[in-house]
Amino acid sequence: MGPDVFPVEPWRVRETRLDLDLIDESESLFALSNGHIGLRGNLDEGEPHGLPGTYLGSFFETRPLPYAEAGYGYPEEGQSIVDVTNGKIIRLYVDDEPLDVRYGELLAHERVLDLRAGSLARRLRWRSPAGGLVEVESTRLVSFTHRSVAAIEYVVTAVDAPLRITVQSELVANEDLPDQSDDPRSAAPLSGVLEGLHHEHGDGTALLVHRTRRSGLMMAAGMAHELELPSGRALETDSAADWARTTVTCELQPGQRLRLVKYLAYGWSSVRSRPALRDQVHAALTSARHTGWAGLVADQRGYLDDFWDGADVEVEGDPDLQQAVRFGMFHVVQASARAQRRAIAAKGLTGPGYDGHAFWDTEMFVLPVLTYTLPHAAADALRWRASTLDLARDRARQLDLAGATFPWRTIRGQECSAYWPAGTAGFHVNADIAAAFERYRLVTGDDTLERECGLEVLVETARLWASLGHHDRHGTWHIDGVTGPDEYTAVVNDNLFTNVMAAHNLESAAAACERHPEAARGLGVTTEETAAWRDAAAAVHIPYDDELGVHEQCEGFTRLREWDFTGNTDYPLLLHEPYVRLYPAQVIKQADLVLAMQVRGHLFTPEQKARNVDYYERRTVRDSSLSACSQAVMCARVGHLDLAHSYAYEAAMVDLRNLHGNTKDGLHMASLAGTWTALVQGFGGLHDDEGVLAIDPVLPGPIGRLTFRLRWREFRLTVTVTHEQVTFTVRDGPDGTLTIRHAGEDIEVGTGAPTVVDLAPRRPLSPGIPDQPPDCCPDPRTQTATGP
Amino acid sequence: MGPDVFPVEPWRVRETRLDLDLIDESESLFALSNGHIGLRGNLDEGEPHGLPGTYLGSFFETRPLPYAEAGYGYPEEGQSIVDVTNGKIIRLYVDDEPLDVRYGELLAHERVLDLRAGSLARRLRWRSPAGGLVEVESTRLVSFTHRSVAAIEYVVTAVDAPLRITVQSELVANEDLPDQSDDPRSAAPLSGVLEGLHHEHGDGTALLVHRTRRSGLMMAAGMAHELELPSGRALETDSAADWARTTVTCELQPGQRLRLVKYLAYGWSSVRSRPALRDQVHAALTSARHTGWAGLVADQRGYLDDFWDGADVEVEGDPDLQQAVRFGMFHVVQASARAQRRAIAAKGLTGPGYDGHAFWDTEMFVLPVLTYTLPHAAADALRWRASTLDLARDRARQLDLAGATFPWRTIRGQECSAYWPAGTAGFHVNADIAAAFERYRLVTGDDTLERECGLEVLVETARLWASLGHHDRHGTWHIDGVTGPDEYTAVVNDNLFTNVMAAHNLESAAAACERHPEAARGLGVTTEETAAWRDAAAAVHIPYDDELGVHEQCEGFTRLREWDFTGNTDYPLLLHEPYVRLYPAQVIKQADLVLAMQVRGHLFTPEQKARNVDYYERRTVRDSSLSACSQAVMCARVGHLDLAHSYAYEAAMVDLRNLHGNTKDGLHMASLAGTWTALVQGFGGLHDDEGVLAIDPVLPGPIGRLTFRLRWREFRLTVTVTHEQVTFTVRDGPDGTLTIRHAGEDIEVGTGAPTVVDLAPRRPLSPGIPDQPPDCCPDPRTQTATGP
Repeated sequence: MGPDVFPVEPWRVRETRLDLDLIDESESLFALSNGHIGLRGNLDEGEPHGLPGTYLGSFFETRPLPYAEAGYGYPEEGQSIVDVTNGKIIRLYVDDEPLDVRYGELLAHERVLDLRAGSLARRLRWRSPAGGLVEVESTRLVSFTHRSVAAIEYVVTAVDAPLRITVQSELVANEDLPDQSDDPRSAAPLSGVLEGLHHEHGDGTALLVHRTRRSGLMMAAGMAHELELPSGRALETDSAADWARTTVTCELQPGQRLRLVKYLAYGWSSVRSRPALRDQVHAALTSARHTGWAGLVADQRGYLDDFWDGADVEVEGDPDLQQAVRFGMFHVVQASARAQRRAIAAKGLTGPGYDGHAFWDTEMFVLPVLTYTLPHAAADALRWRASTLDLARDRARQLDLAGATFPWRTIRGQECSAYWPAGTAGFHVNADIAAAFERYRLVTGDDTLERECGLEVLVETARLWASLGHHDRHGTWHIDGVTGPDEYTAVVNDNLFTNVMAAHNLESAAAACERHPEAARGLGVTTEETAAWRDAAAAVHIPYDDELGVHEQCEGFTRLREWDFTGNTDYPLLLHEPYVRLYPAQVIKQADLVLAMQVRGHLFTPEQKARNVDYYERRTVRDSSLSACSQAVMCARVGHLDLAHSYAYEAAMVDLRNLHGNTKDGLHMASLAGTWTALVQGFGGLHDDEGVLAIDPVLPGPIGRLTFRLRWREFRLTVTVTHEQVTFTVRDGPDGTLTIRHAGEDIEVGTGAPTVVDLAPRRPLSPGIPDQPPDCCPDPRTQTATGP
Repeated sequence: MGPDVFPVEPWRVRETRLDLDLIDESESLFALSNGHIGLRGNLDEGEPHGLPGTYLGSFFETRPLPYAEAGYGYPEEGQSIVDVTNGKIIRLYVDDEPLDVRYGELLAHERVLDLRAGSLARRLRWRSPAGGLVEVESTRLVSFTHRSVAAIEYVVTAVDAPLRITVQSELVANEDLPDQSDDPRSAAPLSGVLEGLHHEHGDGTALLVHRTRRSGLMMAAGMAHELELPSGRALETDSAADWARTTVTCELQPGQRLRLVKYLAYGWSSVRSRPALRDQVHAALTSARHTGWAGLVADQRGYLDDFWDGADVEVEGDPDLQQAVRFGMFHVVQASARAQRRAIAAKGLTGPGYDGHAFWDTEMFVLPVLTYTLPHAAADALRWRASTLDLARDRARQLDLAGATFPWRTIRGQECSAYWPAGTAGFHVNADIAAAFERYRLVTGDDTLERECGLEVLVETARLWASLGHHDRHGTWHIDGVTGPDEYTAVVNDNLFTNVMAAHNLESAAAACERHPEAARGLGVTTEETAAWRDAAAAVHIPYDDELGVHEQCEGFTRLREWDFTGNTDYPLLLHEPYVRLYPAQVIKQADLVLAMQVRGHLFTPEQKARNVDYYERRTVRDSSLSACSQAVMCARVGHLDLAHSYAYEAAMVDLRNLHGNTKDGLHMASLAGTWTALVQGFGGLHDDEGVLAIDPVLPGPIGRLTFRLRWREFRLTVTVTHEQVTFTVRDGPDGTLTIRHAGEDIEVGTGAPTVVDLAPRRPLSPGIPDQPPDCCPDPRTQTATGP
């Protein structure tokens, strides 16, 4: 997947020709979503396809989880995202020959994902096997402003001869899905899960209602059409349990065109009745038709204009990164904008990878971006977590723990991880969630979310840690038998990341109880309890190797066997090496200690950071897409700017260049968000772990200027960084000034004139550039490789 | 299950009445086997039953192992022992009413397992619902001398009125099996796995041939009959794919009897043809008939007389233990005598528990007993292990390890453990196997087994350890990420048991290569390699807590959270607590460090042993049947004699009193062997870890005299211990004397007069008696509780 097919452009992702070998990947890249409806970028005519995909946020089927050797507390039921009724399909017949790009002659084919318009446009020119030449232009959008609505404009033009044209616009449920691979990161196959409950059709309209067989969730999909024909009108609609079809037939003279606008509406519920759902979809269709295609298009652009105005990142000197950071943010917005108290999945709604589950990625990688750029979406995602608190309490009780234990992977809120060492043992997800609540409060300055639900989450997660950890006979507080972010070293004692995040969780909870004493009392919190939390946090063990002068990822980590990189470098290692070999070796899947330094940086001296980066760089293979962005941030912070740039590029290209080989299963939301993180937290130096807005920028050579926008409290701030200076522009906000900690010193900036600060030259904090394991060196990015 | 139903007798296990609530357990207790054929103690008439069971050693079906989240190197296929064609069934009709103990009136019912005769006798008196009174006597044996043969003598007597008697003697394949529980320790249900290939019948004879559907193993079962009737003869035989039946009908006058002898023969093969198997079974039947019932009975007793002559243990003062040790040894002999290069399963051939798999139990718990008492059976079991060496090499290669990795659980040799933290990570099985080879050589003085296959096993397991362990930067050698015997603390670094066993493995392998330089060269061993083995063994890390003055079960163990015994004492804990909670706590399922002290005792000072026993006693819950015997040994060695006695009793009663509640799934071979271990290694003080025969006896108060017999090199030795002295009697052997290390001093004993040594009084090495966790104190055995 190179720039020959996907050229680098600042505001678009354009596919210049149709390469069927890349069809799976392009379906993910070109997926449209608003967080509620997700449409993979399948061709209008339905096939060829890599994987058909139409998803509704958190609409899942359950399945029994099998265990050859079961154990107490193993989840018995999994949840998998369902490929719901496909409304994207518009089939075209040219003189009775079906448009299929595998037959006839495809003279031109271009698709454009427009990051400002929020739409996917396609333009093709095709000669049928019998010689009929047509041009087809289609534009597809999933509306940010009409949550239940997607729409497609489909235009067929006869080019050089009269043609008989037939168009079938369809709804199809229970599509056949191709078999998935054995890769544990892809989805469990689920097909035929929808039971048809109701179908109806009218004049160019149709509606299907289905229910999942096991989970019992009901969904409805409806379509309506607007038609422009040179003359006449031959429209026919029919429906059955699993399909509905509107057929249009006409004759087009050369230059004449048929234009069809297809409105799609979706709804689902676990509690509402069949008529209620049916009517809800009907209402959405009516509203969409009333707004009209042009209105939907305008609304879509308006929504995104507003977003970009407050969130855009401009990168001068690296057009690839420029494109990628916008592509990433666009998909993050797509995954979250209208998710509205549903989980933001690791793949958003772009594919079935990881069964459509949400992980800690959401709170740790996606929400930081949203908190600074689209805070209402962050709040909604946190409200979803809070809504699962009772399930998390049940799980904690099952595990003989106090408080609440949020699931490692889930759609609805129940633990769905069938492998506890890399699931249940990943307790840090609880601290990650707590930190996301705390960050939201800190960045937005808004404590309504904390009052509404955040306090309770903080308290229950603090209780979890208090029951999970313990003091040793010398009074040091430990958390044992847990798995940190790095899944190649699992079930360890005193994972540093987990320990510092747990301590932060405990401190945040104690402080929140202090802020809301009455509510805290209502939760049964006593001052003894908060004192115990603070004491544990203060006594937390921070593993450190005195001899080597580096922190340990976990107790004893630096004493473990070194990985034999002479012989075992088939990446990802997890597909070629057993856990029993990976776990006790100093080989690291993804940033773990490095992530701890990113998010809790003030706990480390600059020299410690530099030594730690050096040590862990040599042992990190980046078999996870959650790693490069953190390595970018920390390499930037310790002054390895070229390396940081390379990592930023790698994070940015995970999907645009399919670096992990599984973009076909859906996009990597965390890494897409991570491009922003690499640029804004890395080169922009943004961090908030000291409770203040801190910005400490530095640019790598090729990037001449970096501009980013963010929200802090009621302010909107633009930060422009060059090699020489940083300019803070407060665009709007309340009267008074905003304090920014720049390079360790607090400065006051106001809504008046921009504040310009000169940058001191930055030198690497350690001699030499860290090495990576063999074949793990990121592609060097010392100069920009592509672009205009 | 108390002495009311199963009274304590020295040479028998007798059931005084039929308690249908105990029928599952009695089927296991009364199972007969020679290591090749296993018959559960089902009633002759087939039902009622707990679980019908007829097994052939290592005859298994495969099944796919499901994983909700798969991982590299997970075994894809499991193996399960198969309930094969049941030849035990003899149904009786009294005036057309079936003998069924649930109906009519059971006036008397007694079963006797005779440990010297090697048979199960049953005697019942039953009045049919219509009033017909019969007496039935049956005797069943599985021949030690005719490996393929079992036989039943069945006698019906009309008591007080003329009766029409019909007897059906059957072969039944694919019996319906009751559903098993969710307990992971029971078997995966498998039924209907036998495909009928051939059936034939003649005059009172029949033969069925079947093949397993997936594993493709072929088996044949045949029967033949001898009949004694007061007059006449009405015998009819028929057969079909899944059954064969010989029916006899006659009239009996009061006092007259019908006597039927049923000869059964079994054979199976993975390679031999259908005719070959058929003929093999036919030949076995012919041979059995030629020997005749009386001959089989006499041969059986002869075999056992010889065994007991060289192996019996006499316990004066505790009749329960007296019975139990013989019961245990009898079943150990049954499991192994004619296994002949097939696995000795954890349950022998007494039930389907653990799927019929063999574990490390065999080498670590069962073979020590056999090595001292029935060495040819130990050698055969080791030959089986060696025969799987190629599979173990394949497994090592798959795991990116050198040498060979033997499976955690298996029937044929492939790894069948679906949970790697308590399977593959239990690498110590390899050292346990190596130690069993080494012990065999040491005790028997016979190095033919080493030449034949032991050397190769030692070399390949040494290579495994060399690739699994590593030196830290200070030169200490570590083995990380493994699971020791204690399955409540898994995937740890430097498990002490594993480390000392691995070091022993490395040393043994190096020494063996020195003994067989040419063969070692043939295996590619260089002096560099053996030097590296010795170096690693010498540098092995022995975790020790200086502050507490105790050894650590694994690195950091004594720093872990203490288990909360105030709230979590639902035993076994594994059914009520998740691994994620158990693993990082100081709660121990079974002897681990204590087992290390038992088998490598010379590495610890007496004071260390005493402190370690004290520390680990308080944290061991004995949720495994592999624990009590080791605790008995170590408590005896550090002078807690009453406690040792209690543990010995517990080990002895695991099945006789169904202490773990799962005797119905089959007997616990390791614990049955462990009774001998507790008495002979514990009170007898037998140990061989210094490479010499060492005996250092001490008796608890209630046991007045303990006599045990064992073989050492060419000698047969009888040791008689009283509270005052120990008497060594060398019964036979070569000229010259035998050196025995008694209480640390070498003494010479000869075949002449017995050598009598006075015993010094022994005091506990630590003050006070160690505590156990709540509800884990073994039943006190300060005085004998039952007996005649």
